[in-house]
Formats: sequence, C-alpha cells, structure tokens
Amino acid sequence: MQDFSQLHAIFDRTRGYINRFMGIIQPIIDAAQDEHTRLYYHHILEEEEQRLGRLEELIPHLAELSAENKPDQLSDRELSQLLSDINLERFGLHNFREHLELSLYEFRDEETRQTLDGMREKTHADYLQVKEIMSRLSERFSDVYHADLTDHDEGHDVHQVDHLKASANAPQGVASVIKHAPAPAPGKKGLTVGSLKGL
Amino acid sequence: MQDFSQLHAIFDRTRGYINRFMGIIQPIIDAAQDEHTRLYYHHILEEEEQRLGRLEELIPHLAELSAENKPDQLSDRELSQLLSDINLERFGLHNFREHLELSLYEFRDEETRQTLDGMREKTHADYLQVKEIMSRLSERFSDVYHADLTDHDEGHDVHQVDHLKASANAPQGVASVIKHAPAPAPGKKGLTVGSLKGL
Repeated sequence: MQDFSQLHAIFDRTRGYINRFMGIIQPIIDAAQDEHTRLYYHHILEEEEQRLGRLEELIPHLAELSAENKPDQLSDRELSQLLSDINLERFGLHNFREHLELSLYEFRDEETRQTLDGMREKTHADYLQVKEIMSRLSERFSDVYHADLTDHDEGHDVHQVDHLKASANAPQGVASVIKHAPAPAPGKKGLTVGSLKGL
Repeated sequence: MQDFSQLHAIFDRTRGYINRFMGIIQPIIDAAQDEHTRLYYHHILEEEEQRLGRLEELIPHLAELSAENKPDQLSDRELSQLLSDINLERFGLHNFREHLELSLYEFRDEETRQTLDGMREKTHADYLQVKEIMSRLSERFSDVYHADLTDHDEGHDVHQVDHLKASANAPQGVASVIKHAPAPAPGKKGLTVGSLKGL
C-alpha cells in the first residue's frame, strides 16, 4: 500500500522535526524573563509533546501496514479508526506549521530562522500530501469512513503571508539573551540545534 | 452510567465556553495591526475550532450512552475507542486552560479578564475531573484500554502561576483599540460577548 508507506515517511519525518523544534524552543523557556513568554512557549511545546505521544503509536502501526499489505485485512471499524487517527495528524501538521511560523518572530539569527523556515516549508508540503492521501483513502473506503477534509488554509489570508519576511524586523525577543546561541557555525563546538535533538 | 453523564455535562459546558471565547478573540484578530498578532490569535482560534469539531461528535455519543446505559453493550473495540476519544479531550481541556491564560495577557478591562479567568478556573476543575473519571474507567476496563494519564500539570512551575495576577500589568495590547469593547455593562446595547456567541 503506497499510501500507507508515504504516510509513514511523512509522520516519521515530522517526529524528527518535533525533536529538532523542541531543541530550539526549550532554551527560550529556560531563559524567559516573564511569565507570559514562559507560558507561551511552554504551551507550544506541550502541544507538540502530545502530538509526539500520538505519533509514537501511529508510526509503528503504519510501518506494519505498509510492510504487510495489511489494510485489506483490517475490519471496517479498525480501518475507520485508522483513517480518523491519520486525519487528526493532518490537523497536527497544520498546527505545527503555525508553531514554526510563530517561532520565526522570536529568532533574529539567520541560521535558526532558516532551519525553522525549512521545516515550515516541508511541513506545509507534507500537510498538503496527507490531505490528498486522505481524500483518496476516504473515497476508496467511503463505505466505512467519511472524512471531514476541511482545508484550514481556505478563507484565511494569514496563511498566504510569508512569515519569514514579515518577521524579519520583529523586535529582539528572549532568544537574543540565550547564552549558548542555538546556531553556531557548522563544525564549531558548543550547543547546537543538532546536539539538542532528542532532548 | 454516572461517569458518562458527568463527562457529557463537562464537554457540553466547554463547548459553550469555546463559543464564548471565540466571541472574545475574533475582534482581536480583526483589529490586529501586525501579522504576528493576527497569526497568534488565529492559531489559537483554529485549534479551538478543531476541538469543537471533535466535541460535536463526542457529545451526542455521550448523551446516548448516559441515557441508555449503553456502555455495557459496547464492543471492546468501541469502548477502547471511546476512552481514547475522551482522553484526547482531556488534553483539549488542558490546552484550552492555557489558551485562556495566554489571553489574560491581552485584555486590560476587568470584565473580560474576569470572564476569561472564570472560564479558566472551571476548565481546570473540569480537566481534573475528567482525569479522575478516566483513571476510574481505565481501571474498570483495563482489559481493553490502557490510558496514558500523564498529568501535564506536574513538573511545570508555569502551571502554579496565577496568570490573572501576573498579567495585571501587561502592556496594552490590540484589545485596547477595538471599537466595540467586548465587555459593555449588562443590558447596554452594542456588541457584547454574548451577541458574538456562535460566530
């Protein structure tokens, strides 16, 4: 089942991105000078932790399905449940894109901004691909599942904004006072975004 | 099933709160002067819309279960699914509490602040109650369901902060430029939080 292999690859990638994103955001929480900043980033991280918890269950399930061509052996109820879980993670990708965009307004150093924007771009493409796959699967399995394929990008101008550009002149946030800058030159010793991966 | 009746009451209440919260936040999005503010509140509202969509399916299901004492007739798989859905909405209540807390930093008028803080207080109590019910249900149905009952309040000092107090001296945000203040005196004509309900 190619669709399930693709979904597996997408959710496996976003799981890696979550860990990378956490490594970038945690120092902001630790260095926050006021309760609002602390709560704001803590909240974003907590939502991503919840998503990670769900993905840790979904990813092995998708791996199994794509390896064994098992979808045909699922009961109607199991299949309906699986499609519902995937649809929830479609929203998860959409929300993650916005977490990445919001974070662009915090960082002034070019390397971190490019890292965030790169993940944003790929996450948006992944979101669109999951949407396409979901539409195909819910047509194929229309007897057991009706997806709410609401496109959260429609009717909201804010999704058309280039937030990398819009955030370029945002005021210096707490990121500027972090001791170990999250973006040293490659090869340089110290705390890097990469070294924080998996925290 | 008393547990399911209680869950029904809680999720029915939070559905009402979402509509009320949307009525308070939408004018902020409309009046936002910069892309960051617009994206920030749009993002929060979108997450609450997604939660509303899920609740619209869960609430009638809970109503049916509590009316007909039907849980005993559910298959293991249906029961497991139901408990998983309820657990997801436990996280939803936790996240909503944080959306309410974050919003306290936007508003300077006492009436809106009290409305937000009142919903925050009740939402936190509801979250704790759902947690307690889930713990009871997953013990009772331990043969079909194992809940991840992670308490997101543990180990995070930010949850012990009184954000009503901490936000009291936050700088004036966009809420101060909204034409129709969201909190006119009761009985007064104009755009009220109540009149925005359901937007």
